[in-house]
Amino acid sequence: MKYNSIDEANQAVVSKITDAQPFLIDVVTAKSVIPELNGKVLLHAGPPIKYEEMTGPMQGSCVGAALFEGWAQNEQEARALLQNGEITFIPCHHVNAVGPMGGITSANMAVLVVENKTDGNRAYCTMNEGIGKVLRFGAYSEEVVNRLKWMAEVLGPSLAKALKLTDGGLNLNVLVAKAITMGDEFHQRNIAASALFLKEILPYLLRADIAPEDLTAVAKFLADTDQFYLNVMMAHCKAVMDAARTIQEGSIVTAMTRNGKEFGIRVSGMGDQWFTAPVNTPQGLFFTGYSQEDANPDIGDSAITESFGVGGMTMVAAPGVTRFVGAGGFDDALAISDEMQEICIGNNSNLPIPTWNFQGAPVGIDIRKVVETGITPIINTGIAHKQAGIGQVGAGTVRAPLACFEKALVALAEKYGVSAE
Amino acid sequence: MKYNSIDEANQAVVSKITDAQPFLIDVVTAKSVIPELNGKVLLHAGPPIKYEEMTGPMQGSCVGAALFEGWAQNEQEARALLQNGEITFIPCHHVNAVGPMGGITSANMAVLVVENKTDGNRAYCTMNEGIGKVLRFGAYSEEVVNRLKWMAEVLGPSLAKALKLTDGGLNLNVLVAKAITMGDEFHQRNIAASALFLKEILPYLLRADIAPEDLTAVAKFLADTDQFYLNVMMAHCKAVMDAARTIQEGSIVTAMTRNGKEFGIRVSGMGDQWFTAPVNTPQGLFFTGYSQEDANPDIGDSAITESFGVGGMTMVAAPGVTRFVGAGGFDDALAISDEMQEICIGNNSNLPIPTWNFQGAPVGIDIRKVVETGITPIINTGIAHKQAGIGQVGAGTVRAPLACFEKALVALAEKYGVSAE
Repeated sequence: MKYNSIDEANQAVVSKITDAQPFLIDVVTAKSVIPELNGKVLLHAGPPIKYEEMTGPMQGSCVGAALFEGWAQNEQEARALLQNGEITFIPCHHVNAVGPMGGITSANMAVLVVENKTDGNRAYCTMNEGIGKVLRFGAYSEEVVNRLKWMAEVLGPSLAKALKLTDGGLNLNVLVAKAITMGDEFHQRNIAASALFLKEILPYLLRADIAPEDLTAVAKFLADTDQFYLNVMMAHCKAVMDAARTIQEGSIVTAMTRNGKEFGIRVSGMGDQWFTAPVNTPQGLFFTGYSQEDANPDIGDSAITESFGVGGMTMVAAPGVTRFVGAGGFDDALAISDEMQEICIGNNSNLPIPTWNFQGAPVGIDIRKVVETGITPIINTGIAHKQAGIGQVGAGTVRAPLACFEKALVALAEKYGVSAE
Repeated sequence: MKYNSIDEANQAVVSKITDAQPFLIDVVTAKSVIPELNGKVLLHAGPPIKYEEMTGPMQGSCVGAALFEGWAQNEQEARALLQNGEITFIPCHHVNAVGPMGGITSANMAVLVVENKTDGNRAYCTMNEGIGKVLRFGAYSEEVVNRLKWMAEVLGPSLAKALKLTDGGLNLNVLVAKAITMGDEFHQRNIAASALFLKEILPYLLRADIAPEDLTAVAKFLADTDQFYLNVMMAHCKAVMDAARTIQEGSIVTAMTRNGKEFGIRVSGMGDQWFTAPVNTPQGLFFTGYSQEDANPDIGDSAITESFGVGGMTMVAAPGVTRFVGAGGFDDALAISDEMQEICIGNNSNLPIPTWNFQGAPVGIDIRKVVETGITPIINTGIAHKQAGIGQVGAGTVRAPLACFEKALVALAEKYGVSAE
């Protein structure tokens, strides 16, 4: 390889992560940037999966997308289409995209566009719908579909107009550097980043050519949606990690994702290959009326945030979220980040954490360290009801399964011609 | 007294603080709510002081206010008026008001109105002007005066219109409970609270009858002014502490303030009386080109925040500010709040601090504890240049002088007929 050692390659991968310059540049219709969304095609979260293997909420999201696209007039028609194999499925990750929870993305949905100005590559993610009955958690009622239409027809185009008035988009490194000092870890907590996003975009929204009633609705939606920034962060992390993937050497995790059945990871030295193992089910706190037995197994591309080094990895930055996900107090948050540091090779100076004595977020999960220590990445996550149509029922944490890392290490050892032992 | 002991009275004072329900209800012209602002009258920060005793920045603020009110056409005329004793001075604290730094407030300036719904009392504070050349730090250029006019003519009335559309104003307890989990201590750091304020008020601003160009300017000003919330918090704290003052018994600090020459405190059992001692000069970090020798002695009513139990008292909530004021890292922030807890009699459950294992902000500074331990309250503060016209040159921390507390304790012992020893 072009590097003298795996360690040197790993440093190159981490430099790609820490040197990245992600900017939010646009919001567009998904099909305009993802040519694969042509005909009856849906993107989904996680490594590849067939419709019949999907868990309830991901299937529910498919129903909602079919209704949104007008491929079916009701749930029954949508289920028939899906069961008859008339829909083609592609993982978001295969087309420069990521999607939260079910990750179901269809041609006419609006997607955020993040460009990594260092490498020139782009990543896409749908916008956050808010909480409660939302497509990503498997709900598909009329309310859900109508909101998606409004997001495609009003919210997306309004944000696009505002972003065109900026000087090359919003600099996301600057925004997240502020927000990490404000208690966000960018997976289960984005209240600061969402408020800062509103603060940044508002002057442009007000100058853009947007009908007053639309402007009011857009501003209210952004003000009310405390997790709006999650999806921006997901596209940010995807754009950065895809640049890191171009190194094609070393033992650094470049993606972690879950489809409800399998947890998949990609590793820098193994390119596009997925290494999978059965997912765990998140443990955490549940909304009133729900309990652990309602929890769907782990799902969603949102673990791209932990792959990048935030979310559960930077729990110490967000002791407020530690309680929300049932993981204890400040000392527990500190212990989690200290543990995560053990499997990382560096710290990201773009993300200094005040509650960690301004140490940067952990960066560069090395699969060798994971396998050696048996410490697997911890992921902060929403919890979907295991049945379609219900939506989010809680929030918690979940561990990546060790087996993915073990399999990847065996493959990597083979590539480099060394024994896996 | 009506209480069985000083401790019992102190609990009553603290209950007034923790039970308070402050709402931001309006923004009005100062003279409409402060009848004393009649003729050539200025309010100032701190305990009573004469013009000739004021330090440079407070005198500079007076020049700016005279120009703003049209009492003088230039600096020379303004200085003549002030030196000839043609202006009457009243402490903000004597008319239900507080003012940052110089605290200079004149009849036609806009003031925030916070109502404490528990007791029905109101408090007033001017709005934050942003950073750099601003009246509160002693600047009085045309830029400064024009901004004050815009704030009185556009910003204030726009916010007033928006607040009238709310259901009884903005509930400030809710807002600060969120912001304290986001790295604010509400004295030197208000970026989270300011962003949340924008998020809360925006939907009302958009519905209010405001000219589009004014709306754009107002939204941009609020988005750009990270310390906007400081003045809201000051009025909040004043409204709460004035309700606590109605108890009129016990040994709890109800106000701390500085006029650049003297530091003054009020104590629950001693009513309106000020106990003063010479101020210290803040130590901290300076903007490029300035140093400790440029620092004006401690000034401003903003120590009402520490009186209430935030600011320096809750340094642990805001490790990001610890660096900004030159007070070290996270462990230093923790040590400061732990020390401040030693002089307080309780914790405010409205303000749980994640980085303090969700312990509430310290509340109820007991002068007996201050004198017994020798620990004086620590105040986070901006630092003004000691000459008029220059403005802010840094930020730091300063200790309240022990002598105020000693004098107050002697007076209190006399009142209760016990020996001060």
